[in-house]
Amino acid sequence: MNLREILIPRDKVFFQLLEEESRNVLLGAQALNDMILNFEDLSEKRKKIKEIEHRGDEIVHLIYERLRTTFITPIDRDEIGNLASLYDDVLDFIDAVAERLKIYEIRASTEAMKKFGALVLKSVEEIHVAFGLMHEITAPDIEARCIEVDRLENEADTLLQQSVAALFKTEDAITIIKMKEIYEYLESTTDKCEDVVQELRNIVVEYA
Amino acid sequence: MNLREILIPRDKVFFQLLEEESRNVLLGAQALNDMILNFEDLSEKRKKIKEIEHRGDEIVHLIYERLRTTFITPIDRDEIGNLASLYDDVLDFIDAVAERLKIYEIRASTEAMKKFGALVLKSVEEIHVAFGLMHEITAPDIEARCIEVDRLENEADTLLQQSVAALFKTEDAITIIKMKEIYEYLESTTDKCEDVVQELRNIVVEYA
Amino acid sequence: MNLREILIPRDKVFFQLLEEESRNVLLGAQALNDMILNFEDLSEKRKKIKEIEHRGDEIVHLIYERLRTTFITPIDRDEIGNLASLYDDVLDFIDAVAERLKIYEIRASTEAMKKFGALVLKSVEEIHVAFGLMHEITAPDIEARCIEVDRLENEADTLLQQSVAALFKTEDAITIIKMKEIYEYLESTTDKCEDVVQELRNIVVEYA
Repeated sequence: MNLREILIPRDKVFFQLLEEESRNVLLGAQALNDMILNFEDLSEKRKKIKEIEHRGDEIVHLIYERLRTTFITPIDRDEIGNLASLYDDVLDFIDAVAERLKIYEIRASTEAMKKFGALVLKSVEEIHVAFGLMHEITAPDIEARCIEVDRLENEADTLLQQSVAALFKTEDAITIIKMKEIYEYLESTTDKCEDVVQELRNIVVEYA
Repeated sequence: MNLREILIPRDKVFFQLLEEESRNVLLGAQALNDMILNFEDLSEKRKKIKEIEHRGDEIVHLIYERLRTTFITPIDRDEIGNLASLYDDVLDFIDAVAERLKIYEIRASTEAMKKFGALVLKSVEEIHVAFGLMHEITAPDIEARCIEVDRLENEADTLLQQSVAALFKTEDAITIIKMKEIYEYLESTTDKCEDVVQELRNIVVEYA
Repeated sequence: MNLREILIPRDKVFFQLLEEESRNVLLGAQALNDMILNFEDLSEKRKKIKEIEHRGDEIVHLIYERLRTTFITPIDRDEIGNLASLYDDVLDFIDAVAERLKIYEIRASTEAMKKFGALVLKSVEEIHVAFGLMHEITAPDIEARCIEVDRLENEADTLLQQSVAALFKTEDAITIIKMKEIYEYLESTTDKCEDVVQELRNIVVEYA
């Protein structure tokens, strides 16, 4: 039994809304990666990410609205709501990074930022496969994606340790405060991806 | 069907305890606002907030004690417990701000602090309406309050970005560390308010 | 009815796996305490904690694997999974402290660190009693341990406030950033212990 079979008989719309949310988070991760790789027109690029973030909020509101008005068991409601909400956190962190790149007046992107941006994008791509293609894949396939997201989070964690240690050796206190926070938000974005796959695991465990 | 009808047949006491918790959090938000607006006798004002925070812990313990000894379904237990616990987090953050205003030896409150204090107070007032008057209001009324708390949180988020960006332009590293943390705790207090209304939404969704 | 009676009829293995996880977290807390008290061979000591942290991840994966393949109600699955996962967070924070002691090139441990290390160890020891000996103890005994963990967390919170206030009076900005973060991670480790006992309470409440 795959997730589509579980969800569709109840209400196909949740399935479609979760896919829409996932496409939107992917757009956000791509836009952040582009902002880091092509470090120019920051105001415009930051504004674009803000719009994606707002769209994400709208989709989550739609999901909650629909949950309120649909006949569905309480446990399923909680889980669909949690999944939508946790995935929205990923987008909020992407948005927080973009904001800081702009307001802290960072002049150039660093190698660490580029590596983080790639890790965030890969994590979201994995979730998008597990999430957006729920109708084609089964529990073991989803677990494979979850394991990969966990691995990427570990990689981001190591990158954070190395890049912050390097900051302390080369930068002044104010630059350390700014860059350390940006690196931490980037790493936390991958943490939030891990939270999404953990909730996905809980759901899969239940219906396996 | 409103929330009173849901809760009362089970145990009226939870309803009263949640109202008592809410009045106490409101006292905390008012005391913090007063501390920021009238920036004097900090030790005494900080002590008063600590007492309110302790009272909050007592109320939450009472709620858990009562949940343990009352016949009520597991899901309802979790939800009432979560709601009480999340609202207690708001008070913990109010307390954390008050503590830092004192121990960091901040000499004067800033415009940003005053704006944050007002946002925290408004957020708690909205929750108090949604929460404390559960017996009079229905799901759409509660949702209106929740939306307002979300809006206030967004406002606090923007204020954080602006005020921290300003700090980096005008202050030394040590002042930046102190003030940035105080602003972040103030903003996080509104985040915690958003978590409360999210849990409230989950409950309302279930019994709508 | 004690927790063993609840868990064993379903699957004795969860009980054993949770005990194994608990023993491993205890090893981690002991290793961190040793690292702080005997501040030498940091690379080797940090490596040992990393190994313990990896072992913890393996145990949690085993628990989730087993949850997936065992007949057990959804609510029980969530709770066992949450408990395992929250306890793993304690170990992650222990690991994060060890990492920072090494990469920030801290030259000596401070009195505050030693006090924090002792509080973390005591908190984990309390949880280990409540957790590892589930088959012998009943709800009131578990609650006594939970209250003690809450008390230790309050103590750690006060210690954080005092030690950070002291940093601001005596250290330069870069040292403040490093040491403040280490103290905060130590304090957060006791927060995570509190989250574990909160989940334990929820479970006990349900089966009381």
